[in-house]
Order: sequence, then C-alpha cells, then structure tokens
Amino acid sequence: MRDIVIIGHKAKTSGDFSLNDLPGSAGRMDILCRCVSSALFLSFGMRRDVNVHLLLLGEPEPGKIIRFEGLHLRYLNPDERSSGSLIQKALQKTVTEKDIRSTPGVWVRNGDLNTLLASFEGRTLFYLREDGEDIRGLDREIRDPVFILGDHMGVTEEEEKQLLEAGAKIISVGPISLHSNHCITLLHNELDRAEAERGEIPGGEKLRAGE
Amino acid sequence: MRDIVIIGHKAKTSGDFSLNDLPGSAGRMDILCRCVSSALFLSFGMRRDVNVHLLLLGEPEPGKIIRFEGLHLRYLNPDERSSGSLIQKALQKTVTEKDIRSTPGVWVRNGDLNTLLASFEGRTLFYLREDGEDIRGLDREIRDPVFILGDHMGVTEEEEKQLLEAGAKIISVGPISLHSNHCITLLHNELDRAEAERGEIPGGEKLRAGE
Repeated sequence: MRDIVIIGHKAKTSGDFSLNDLPGSAGRMDILCRCVSSALFLSFGMRRDVNVHLLLLGEPEPGKIIRFEGLHLRYLNPDERSSGSLIQKALQKTVTEKDIRSTPGVWVRNGDLNTLLASFEGRTLFYLREDGEDIRGLDREIRDPVFILGDHMGVTEEEEKQLLEAGAKIISVGPISLHSNHCITLLHNELDRAEAERGEIPGGEKLRAGE
Repeated sequence: MRDIVIIGHKAKTSGDFSLNDLPGSAGRMDILCRCVSSALFLSFGMRRDVNVHLLLLGEPEPGKIIRFEGLHLRYLNPDERSSGSLIQKALQKTVTEKDIRSTPGVWVRNGDLNTLLASFEGRTLFYLREDGEDIRGLDREIRDPVFILGDHMGVTEEEEKQLLEAGAKIISVGPISLHSNHCITLLHNELDRAEAERGEIPGGEKLRAGE
C-alpha cells in the first residue's frame, strides 16, 4: 500500500466554492486536485494500491480530512474538475471525527495532522523536502510507505516538527523544487521500478485482479 | 532546449468550446492542458528552456499547431483551465501556415506532424512508447532533445511510420503505461538530474537570469 498525504493550508472546508474557479474560490484546491489525479491514475485504470489523504486547513472549518481509496474509487476522471467535484461533494456532508462515506471510495472526517499521523502508527513516514535525501538511494528499501507533501506554501515549522517527532524521514525527488503533483509522479515511478525489479506488478494490478 | 510535442487526435481546432468541459466539448483538451502544465512549471517559476507544441487534429479544421515558449510565456497558471483558456484564445485567431502570436509566448499556425518534424531537422527525436528503451540508460547522452507523445489514443500507425522515418528513437520512462503529462514530468526529472550532474543549472535558470 502507498499512502499519500497532501496538506492544503488554504483549501476550503465547505462545499460552497465554484468548480470554475478552483484556484481562487476554493483556496488553491486545484493543487490538491492535481495531486489526486497524479496519485491515482495509470494510463488505463486506477492505482488500486494507493490512498490519498487531503488535509484541508482553510476556512470556514479548518481541519477536515478527505480520503480517496484507489481500491474502491468510482466516478473519478483525471481532469481537475472531476476530483474537484468529488471533493466538493465530500465537503457538503455533515462530518464528525468518524469517517463518513461521500461517494464510492471517498471518505471525509474532521481531523488534523496529528489525527492522520496517529492513524499511520507503525508505518514508515517520508516527508518531501527539496533538500532531503535522494529517493534514488532508498527506493529498494521502501515498503508500505506514507508520503507527506505540502502545497504551494510548503510545510509549516510546526507541521515539520510534528512530522519529525513522528519519525518521518526527509527525502527529495531531484535537484530542483517541483510542484507536489509532479513529486507524486516521481515517487510512484521510483516505487514502480523497484517493484518491477522485484518481479512484482506495479500499480496494484494484483489487487484489481482479485476484486 | 527541450521541445515537447503532444498529439491531440480529437482536440478541437476552433475556440468554441467550454472551459467548464475541457474533456467533452473540447475533445480531451484536458490531456493537452495537463501536458502544458507538466512541461512548463517549476515550483517557483517557469521552465525557460522548454517549448511545447500541441498538434490538434480534431474538428472542425484538423491540423493546427499551438506552441508555448517557456522563455516568453505570460498569463499561464498551473491549473488546466488556465492553459485551456490560452489554447482557446489561440484557436480564436485566423491562422495560416505562418506563425501568429496569440498571447505572449503562445503561437498558432496550420500544420501537421510532418510540418513539425521538418521544423526539428537536425535535432534528436525521441518518441515515447511503453515498450521503448528505458531513458535511464540514455539520459546522460540526451542533449537538445525533442520528445513526441501521443494522447489517450496513443500514436497511430501512420504517425509512428512518420516518426521512425524521421529517425526518432523509441524510449520509455518506466515499467507501466502512464498518462502523457506524467511521462513529461519523468522526462524532465531525468534530464534535470543529468544536467545537475554535469554542473549545469536545470530548468533554464541561466536563460531566466539573462532576460
């Protein structure tokens, strides 16, 4: 399983935004939409072994978590508006601390970074930062990872502190600073290559076959 | 310089589509929009050393080429709707075989794959196909490349014939078939790493500094 967390510092936490203006009205929700698409799509299908966790910290109710589960996901197309629409539907739900299913494979609840980190106890955490250790030296060791990425604002000092306390390792994907969705594509590629080398089938094909 | 060609087999060739429905009304223009964004954006700025060539083959006037020049580009944001809007503006121009500037850094003309290939004479062409040679064995040799990618329909037999006749080398970016925009991110990363190893500054920073 690959879990990917993206922190949206300004991303709206109510569904009253316009799908025609995801960058403006929805607090740079376009960034999160592109991350969802990069995390989940293969050329002909979905990555079944991936969960995406969007941590939304914008107004009016900072601290909501939307989870996309590749294994159960439906109604998602690769365009930004499609993931934006599923996010909007999830934000129209009345949420509590407990998971509520919005659409197939999409879940929403209240929570913050600590909530998420607690749910990953025992997993290996990797926090993406441009000066981190190059993933190319590590990719053969990485199993069952959780990756944590910031948005256009990066990761705050407070968040970084929480990540390091939780044992996250700092990694990078190349020599220059890239958008989060591009980083996700690069992470997947490293792991796909490592899985293929081990004779496994990348992208969770086995899971799909067993559905 | 890195030139990237994406063939949009169904992409509309008039500007009368809705930015609210890039996949449907504009003939999977969403794919081309994501490619533009992946090709041109760095975390804090634009890749100045990249040109993107969209070959639009959909109705009503199949055979238009829109070129985005990283060095001169303005008004582009990373969201799909932003590149969709610049494409739409270009398609609203009356075009001929000669380049017409639509907005800063965006040019449009009539043409087909052969027109494009002729304009790259002397350059090294790389055609992306999932069973191609792995770029990781080649990346240190690649200078001044032109990459050619298909859309959701891939590349037709006829196009492939033209590409091979023009001397294109078939390469791949990993063990599984990916969306074109993800392939572009992976191509850039390989070249960025090779440039960094050679002590160059990836992303065309030198060009930017000299503007």
